[in-house]
Amino acid sequence: MEKWLESVYSDGSKRFVAPPRPSLDEEVTVRLQVYNDAKVKHIFLRTVPNGAECLTEMHPIGEENGLTIYEASFEMIEHRMNYQFHLITEDAIYYYTQNGITTYIPDHTYDFVVMTDYVQPEWVKNQVFYQIFPERFCNGTDEWNRVYDNEHKLDFYGGTLDGIRSKIPYLKELGVTAIYLNPIFVAPSTHKYDCDDYFHVDEAFGGDEALARLSSALHENGMKLILDISINHTGTGSVWFQKAYHQKDSEERSFYFFEGDSDTYKGWAGYASLPVLDYRNEKLRDLIYRSKDSVLRKWLQPPYSIDGWRFDVADVFARNGKVQLNHILWKEIRKAIREENPQAYILAEDWGDCGNYLSGEEWDSPMNYFGFGRIIRQYLGAGDLFGMRNEIVRNVPYKMTAEDVEARVRQHLAKIPFALWQNQFNLIDSHDISRLHHENVDWKSYRGAVIFQFMMIGAPSVYYGDELEIEGWTHNDGGFRAPMPWKAENGDYKKIKTYQLYQTLCHRKQTHSSLCEGSMKFLYAKEQVIALARFDETEAHVMVMNHNTTDVTVTLPLGAVGIRDVSSLQDVFGETYSAKAVDMHHVEITLSAEQTLMLYTNFLG
Amino acid sequence: MEKWLESVYSDGSKRFVAPPRPSLDEEVTVRLQVYNDAKVKHIFLRTVPNGAECLTEMHPIGEENGLTIYEASFEMIEHRMNYQFHLITEDAIYYYTQNGITTYIPDHTYDFVVMTDYVQPEWVKNQVFYQIFPERFCNGTDEWNRVYDNEHKLDFYGGTLDGIRSKIPYLKELGVTAIYLNPIFVAPSTHKYDCDDYFHVDEAFGGDEALARLSSALHENGMKLILDISINHTGTGSVWFQKAYHQKDSEERSFYFFEGDSDTYKGWAGYASLPVLDYRNEKLRDLIYRSKDSVLRKWLQPPYSIDGWRFDVADVFARNGKVQLNHILWKEIRKAIREENPQAYILAEDWGDCGNYLSGEEWDSPMNYFGFGRIIRQYLGAGDLFGMRNEIVRNVPYKMTAEDVEARVRQHLAKIPFALWQNQFNLIDSHDISRLHHENVDWKSYRGAVIFQFMMIGAPSVYYGDELEIEGWTHNDGGFRAPMPWKAENGDYKKIKTYQLYQTLCHRKQTHSSLCEGSMKFLYAKEQVIALARFDETEAHVMVMNHNTTDVTVTLPLGAVGIRDVSSLQDVFGETYSAKAVDMHHVEITLSAEQTLMLYTNFLG
Repeated sequence: MEKWLESVYSDGSKRFVAPPRPSLDEEVTVRLQVYNDAKVKHIFLRTVPNGAECLTEMHPIGEENGLTIYEASFEMIEHRMNYQFHLITEDAIYYYTQNGITTYIPDHTYDFVVMTDYVQPEWVKNQVFYQIFPERFCNGTDEWNRVYDNEHKLDFYGGTLDGIRSKIPYLKELGVTAIYLNPIFVAPSTHKYDCDDYFHVDEAFGGDEALARLSSALHENGMKLILDISINHTGTGSVWFQKAYHQKDSEERSFYFFEGDSDTYKGWAGYASLPVLDYRNEKLRDLIYRSKDSVLRKWLQPPYSIDGWRFDVADVFARNGKVQLNHILWKEIRKAIREENPQAYILAEDWGDCGNYLSGEEWDSPMNYFGFGRIIRQYLGAGDLFGMRNEIVRNVPYKMTAEDVEARVRQHLAKIPFALWQNQFNLIDSHDISRLHHENVDWKSYRGAVIFQFMMIGAPSVYYGDELEIEGWTHNDGGFRAPMPWKAENGDYKKIKTYQLYQTLCHRKQTHSSLCEGSMKFLYAKEQVIALARFDETEAHVMVMNHNTTDVTVTLPLGAVGIRDVSSLQDVFGETYSAKAVDMHHVEITLSAEQTLMLYTNFLG
Repeated sequence: MEKWLESVYSDGSKRFVAPPRPSLDEEVTVRLQVYNDAKVKHIFLRTVPNGAECLTEMHPIGEENGLTIYEASFEMIEHRMNYQFHLITEDAIYYYTQNGITTYIPDHTYDFVVMTDYVQPEWVKNQVFYQIFPERFCNGTDEWNRVYDNEHKLDFYGGTLDGIRSKIPYLKELGVTAIYLNPIFVAPSTHKYDCDDYFHVDEAFGGDEALARLSSALHENGMKLILDISINHTGTGSVWFQKAYHQKDSEERSFYFFEGDSDTYKGWAGYASLPVLDYRNEKLRDLIYRSKDSVLRKWLQPPYSIDGWRFDVADVFARNGKVQLNHILWKEIRKAIREENPQAYILAEDWGDCGNYLSGEEWDSPMNYFGFGRIIRQYLGAGDLFGMRNEIVRNVPYKMTAEDVEARVRQHLAKIPFALWQNQFNLIDSHDISRLHHENVDWKSYRGAVIFQFMMIGAPSVYYGDELEIEGWTHNDGGFRAPMPWKAENGDYKKIKTYQLYQTLCHRKQTHSSLCEGSMKFLYAKEQVIALARFDETEAHVMVMNHNTTDVTVTLPLGAVGIRDVSSLQDVFGETYSAKAVDMHHVEITLSAEQTLMLYTNFLG
């Protein structure tokens, strides 16, 4: 393929689509950028209004930093309009979709999409989430009442919501802006995924009032709060389940999947302690999300006013053999949630491909293991999170390449509308997986992973304690739910290099538009070196990650994101490196072993 | 990638899935084949029952022609189960889906799928369709009453259904087995897409009784019949439209998209002569497909008993701005049709990507321009059928590569269930496009295109007269709707080489299982050479097409489809070529300029 094709770029951001959230019948203008010396003769915007192909020639409207901007418009006659770009040269035609460029006519799988019928939670892209496992974060003091190890993992350590509230100054100083709490409703376990009463906060955490206090305090500090819930199953202590189990003629009996009149029922992943709910029952739907005082609605309302829901095991929700209600229910749930709060965030647990939930009608984002977390962890040698569960797969000494990292990130994003790219909840660690810093990953690689995470489009999520290099052990949930080490490092956490890393990145996200609203483009992916840019009309960040144990020199097409002055580049962390311009569009950069650069330039000077 | 990966193969045919059409809760066994000396250590079948990933190790069950067959089973707990294969070596993991092999975890877009809820029209894969434009095929004699040229293209030549019936011996001799008739219902034009009465056959064609006679005669001869209809729009002479236009308070008024009380209405592609129907009207749905005596049902019932419908402009059907009823209506239409005849074929006109109609819930096949017709025509230099409509695109001297041919065929098929691969209606010519033999395509290339067509999975469609090298001119529908030249070539059509080509291929399709039920695999695609195999447990056909003006020598992995004895290969047409074994799996073949081979071997000896 011709070299200039590396510069072809468009996306759904406000820089390339105006307006990005049009109304029906409104005119939408779409832009595309390409090197100003590109050998392109014509560029067509291809739409398919009402099913009929339409090619509209795009016209150059000006230049920005060595890139020519082309533009064309179409009328938003349908609620969803998809499009591609066809680029014509002297003797070739190239086709550009969200999946990149092909020399053959692409199908619609990866088309760009503009929608009128999707209300994006606009705040999400600006956040740094901080995930807290409430039982282990803060008991109101900085001391824990007992030692912690694998023998004690099921013990109660006394974390509370007021404890969390007392740490808001800490969280603000760190720079995180939104809190995701693991389950807090009445349940017997520490993790509370075995919920007995969705309508009340566990008294051990401080009850409903503590949640109201926490929510108010967070909002007063400009922070957001989302709660975790498993509406897939209850605990066996649930009033519903107790009635269902003991009274075979009760309505609650049909809330669950009992086998006839027996005591046998379906449990999540086979666990009898987690009886699965059967959403064929209309009353259950009323209780969970339909009624004004239903579970999902209650907590979105004052005085709790949460900003969104994280749904546990959403991948298997409402699916049981021939009863496959998932896509019906998620649409209904989305509608119910958005009636309460049009800006509420719908985050769902799914570790695999879930593109069919991400059309804009169901979820806003998965826990993004598939499109980021699993990838970066595997790339650094921690093993794929799914593969690790299989002994044979686990033992394959397979080294992932940068090409595959790019391909996997792209395959997750390319299938979904750009509006949902901006919602992606990009995580490295969580309450379900070993912490990456316990996985024999050296500090430089770990640092690279975190920079990559903050460079990704969407919102990064920091799992509590990662910033303090929290202790633990791997491959067992005791290992990743340890109490927060408030007393670590002589109490002066500001000296911990990992804390400094996160703090710098959190504050950078808060203050730099390109890391929030900016476009995203891979600039390089070969063997063990990957480069990624975030950019808008005012500035650009470029990450270059060398995952080799030796120095490498790579040539990056920085001109493709408008960077033409090498001397204007600064590393955010003051890393040293050498760079020189090769030609008008390319810069040669030399990195040391395992070095990750996070370069910055401001186009406004 | 490692060489042995070229041999990895599975699909949804009965050889690789047993049973291929399971019932709910039935056990399904899936097989995969690979070279018996492949360096694979483990193969996993990956399913996602109820949303949870499940890896099942596959085990070798035997060898066939140098290939080891692996097998694993799963329970059909959902109506649709999708799966992938994960192949593990000493130091790598490869992932295999319908889209081929990747070194990274693929998403679900291209998963293999088994369905319980799709009734496949099993007869389709065994057919050779023959498309007839009724006004121009046969008037009952072999003489036409006037000259034909562009000036006369709108004239009536007098073709009738009885005329077609009189040519059944000709059709049987040629070897076609199913007839697709362009519209025959009451309409003023020659093409009859401007229908005035869907409930009756045009008297000029012989009326309803002539259709009953034709249908009976075809069925008595073991042949099938499908009819063409445009339920997207009527003609302006329609009783419905006349009432709608003149009586603003009539129910029929809302059958169409009138602008308020004005005389302005939506016409197909802007043509006022083709007023578009508005399916928001429930009565219209009753008339077209819901009532027992509705249009679509009537003709499926005796004495007409047609075997399926071809839907005109299905790409734009039931789509008008915010009124997007297409996916709802096609599901309803499918249900109605299948109630009348569970084996009825649903063929829809769409020239572009229409994968979202091909899940098994809507169409059985498009007119396969996107996945075959446009591709082969463009490959041979006739220009892309869509691109040709744009002056700029038309003038790009772009030469398509064999790699792109393979990629485009694959992207059409890889997204849809295998059951629908077998329904694909693969055409080169139709009533809407110039005939390929008028496109400056030399005979050898043309011959290659037709062999390719008959090698494709699904059913080929021959457009009437192509076999007789019918005259005409290009790029105007007069040019491709000329009267059938019954008197051509001294009346002895058996001497025409094109006739001989089609006749050989038609009869071959009727007598060789691999061309009907067989698997399909590309063996080679590079620059201007492409090789494709169809194979089952008893035999294999291999097409090798050299689209160079010089000789070429290529090495083909014939072992991947079980061919290990070069001397057993015979060209179906007696073409001469040289071949020699390179190693256990590979054969080197030399082809002359523009030569296409169609090699055959029988594994049973």
